[in-house]
Amino acid sequence: MKILVIGGSGTIGSRVVTRLSSTHEVIIAGRHSGQVQVDLSDSASIQKMYQQMGALDAVVCIAGEAKWAPFETLSESDFHIGLDNKLMGQVNLVRLGHRCLNPGGSFTLTTGILADHPVPMTSSAAMVNGALHSFVKAVALELSELRVNVVSAGLVDVSVERYGEFFPDHPPVPVSRVVDTYAQSVEGQMTGQILKVYPTF
Amino acid sequence: MKILVIGGSGTIGSRVVTRLSSTHEVIIAGRHSGQVQVDLSDSASIQKMYQQMGALDAVVCIAGEAKWAPFETLSESDFHIGLDNKLMGQVNLVRLGHRCLNPGGSFTLTTGILADHPVPMTSSAAMVNGALHSFVKAVALELSELRVNVVSAGLVDVSVERYGEFFPDHPPVPVSRVVDTYAQSVEGQMTGQILKVYPTF
Repeated sequence: MKILVIGGSGTIGSRVVTRLSSTHEVIIAGRHSGQVQVDLSDSASIQKMYQQMGALDAVVCIAGEAKWAPFETLSESDFHIGLDNKLMGQVNLVRLGHRCLNPGGSFTLTTGILADHPVPMTSSAAMVNGALHSFVKAVALELSELRVNVVSAGLVDVSVERYGEFFPDHPPVPVSRVVDTYAQSVEGQMTGQILKVYPTF
Repeated sequence: MKILVIGGSGTIGSRVVTRLSSTHEVIIAGRHSGQVQVDLSDSASIQKMYQQMGALDAVVCIAGEAKWAPFETLSESDFHIGLDNKLMGQVNLVRLGHRCLNPGGSFTLTTGILADHPVPMTSSAAMVNGALHSFVKAVALELSELRVNVVSAGLVDVSVERYGEFFPDHPPVPVSRVVDTYAQSVEGQMTGQILKVYPTF
């Protein structure tokens, strides 16, 4: 398969790329890294990326920003960071990309456990994740030749140092389980699924 | 209690107003109807509405638009109708209104069954509903003196004539159950809850 991985240079993304590269052709896209540059918050940038690609078999997005801050301090434009980048960026990957995929191709998007188990300071980030969960269920009903899934992971063991303090009651999940889940979405047959890699609470 | 009902002139809203008015003081807000006018897609309009209110005990929103259309035809600005109106309109009701509520006060927002059980043509509408479900869970963690819930109803029996054709496999739910649920959110003690009034499939 020819697979485009947006965010393929990140902590999780680079591991997914390593895994998929053993049996597939992988192209890495990133804001400032990878073989192709893309700004998720700009649909023209997404369109330009696809124009450089030719036909693809899978698109995996492991990128997207949203602002974390106490609710009292979040402005309307703070909410729009997540809406424009992580939410509409991934919606636009499907909206502008579905004609670039070969029949049987797939999209695999990324959210996170906050959609279902939020922590303080995540009213914007949780919202964006929940939006994508329902979007994936809905859009899968209409893209009959393609598959669309989303991976929603908990706090990943390799990110505990950076994010652990925000998730005091969330046991970490092994990154290998998360990488396996991306590969299952790409190589398997499911569609419209929210693939949850959550800890047992 | 002094209760502001946005969308209190609608099919469901007018019934919720009738129910709450028997024991509470109710003020109806609407785009073009009611005692106070408000445009949910405009945060300045929401702020102006609250400035006219004085302290409130509950805010109930039974309003909000999102575009229904085949995914292939939805433009980026079509998605923004739902993001700006039903989603950020209700987020802004909480963001701009939480200081106008008396301690123990509550917000009750509105989504719908598409968040969990979408039908074709609802990739935007379902997304907005899912976003609000996660938002309510997250924001309730931070508004410790207040309560925030959301009512998510299925196809309501009184709306079958207008919307039934879009939900061929959704049995309708009685409007009385939906009205009861809004009243329970206002008069009860729960917070951070997605109050689902769904049929048995």
